[in-house]
Amino acid sequence: MSILVVGSIAYDTVATPSGQVEDALGGSATFFASAARFFSPVKMVAVVGEDFDAAELEFLRTQGVDTSGISVESGKTFRWSGSYGQELGDAETLATHLNVFENFRPAVPEASRGEDFVFLANIDPELQLSVLEQMSRPKMVVCDTMNFWIDGKRDALLRLLQRVDVLLLNETEAKSLAGERNVVRAARAIGGMGPSRVVVKMGEHGVLFAEGDRLLRLPAYPLEEVRDPTGAGDTFAGGFVGSLAESGDFSPGGVKRALLYGAVTASFAVEAFSMERLVGLNRAEIDARYATLRRIGGWDG
Amino acid sequence: MSILVVGSIAYDTVATPSGQVEDALGGSATFFASAARFFSPVKMVAVVGEDFDAAELEFLRTQGVDTSGISVESGKTFRWSGSYGQELGDAETLATHLNVFENFRPAVPEASRGEDFVFLANIDPELQLSVLEQMSRPKMVVCDTMNFWIDGKRDALLRLLQRVDVLLLNETEAKSLAGERNVVRAARAIGGMGPSRVVVKMGEHGVLFAEGDRLLRLPAYPLEEVRDPTGAGDTFAGGFVGSLAESGDFSPGGVKRALLYGAVTASFAVEAFSMERLVGLNRAEIDARYATLRRIGGWDG
Repeated sequence: MSILVVGSIAYDTVATPSGQVEDALGGSATFFASAARFFSPVKMVAVVGEDFDAAELEFLRTQGVDTSGISVESGKTFRWSGSYGQELGDAETLATHLNVFENFRPAVPEASRGEDFVFLANIDPELQLSVLEQMSRPKMVVCDTMNFWIDGKRDALLRLLQRVDVLLLNETEAKSLAGERNVVRAARAIGGMGPSRVVVKMGEHGVLFAEGDRLLRLPAYPLEEVRDPTGAGDTFAGGFVGSLAESGDFSPGGVKRALLYGAVTASFAVEAFSMERLVGLNRAEIDARYATLRRIGGWDG
Repeated sequence: MSILVVGSIAYDTVATPSGQVEDALGGSATFFASAARFFSPVKMVAVVGEDFDAAELEFLRTQGVDTSGISVESGKTFRWSGSYGQELGDAETLATHLNVFENFRPAVPEASRGEDFVFLANIDPELQLSVLEQMSRPKMVVCDTMNFWIDGKRDALLRLLQRVDVLLLNETEAKSLAGERNVVRAARAIGGMGPSRVVVKMGEHGVLFAEGDRLLRLPAYPLEEVRDPTGAGDTFAGGFVGSLAESGDFSPGGVKRALLYGAVTASFAVEAFSMERLVGLNRAEIDARYATLRRIGGWDG
């Protein structure tokens, strides 16, 4: 089954203890597609400015990613600049220039409105709702969000969550959304807000998954070196949604496999800056690391 | 197989967001024994002052813990006072009164020198070495330590590690001991310092286990409420060493089971203050939570 992703395309300027890049390809839709494409056909809906070099998406198109839903608007492409400290936790945002992204009104192409899987990357929940209103009957709606919307657009977000099957968010966001200090209580509370499944992302500490009373606690892939955490959450989502769309298996086993594939694709993303490691990646490398992670997690001897 | 534990017995005064206790039974040897006793016979070597109420250890003796190695010295029992913030991370130490613990010179009773398993709880590495010199030929030496010794008695600690089979320490300590910023590299580096197995404790995020090239990343038991983290590390060690001593199985499967039992016994400890939850605990409750953790970790359907 194929996946529609709606999100951002950006030029990122990032500094970490390992180095820095300037105006490097980034954005939630880009990172998502760069991971999901290994599992399922992907169609992107996003916006770029006239300064955008379309050739930069060639590595996606060669693997069948449909970029026809990317509109070019007059003005400059979204730019984000951030810096990570020694602990590589949350980035300190140095500058955000929304540029053409400021007036982004996602228009889903006619031919993409029947997709079975929708990934709503982290944008204004009102825009995320507008995407769902354009879709016919997706089998599974997966959604990401952030504190900016939890704090600033809570009502719209709560309306959106009624129509979301799986919510992905990080630990701080989960606690904030649920008004809980404990992450297990937070995940369960969010399950009562609409999404039947909640994935709490904990960075290097993996994920907590909640579905009704059932919990699943899975590790990240333990790396010896992380160079740039940018895009970790969206490449996690890419591997996760990609694997679910590939298998169509929503059983506990299928969800676990998808969560582990998410951990694997995220681990490749953070090993290098921007898309450096993702551009030349192949499925065999992903599957080899998936097998290693299964040994590290104690599922295979 | 039975276990010799050498460590502290203390009266703890602890404040957390959930409440506080004053002069409550604590100490590394006490917490360890309170968990390990469910799996294997335990013998304690420790020191208390004349003010100590020996009846407080009755719950251990009723399950066969040998407390004859606890010496009573003139003076007062070791007292520690600490406070935890909302995040329940590391405690802020408010007061430490070593009292009789200041001159603790562990003397292993003649009858305990042939034990197969030794757990050296976190004390001065020179004292930990002196314990090993009193033992005949233990099958497995498991050791805990802390930053205070890593920074202040590094040479003695490195000598000790040559004689240690399993080192337990937390993530900050592992990075500090290895001089590495990355926890995977740290765990592997410590493996080169003597211990064939390294357990990096990550609190609510579980453990990273390293043995040669092999890594194992296992979760903690996800709790909806943590009332007092005091003793988590030592009750983890108690379940871990206890299970290994019970099974005698040092294979990957046996180590994994032991690490999960450690996670389970620690989860009971932190649900309440001091020994409150551990006093009336039974093996059936431990095994039920172990089964739940196996489902949460994705090993059983």
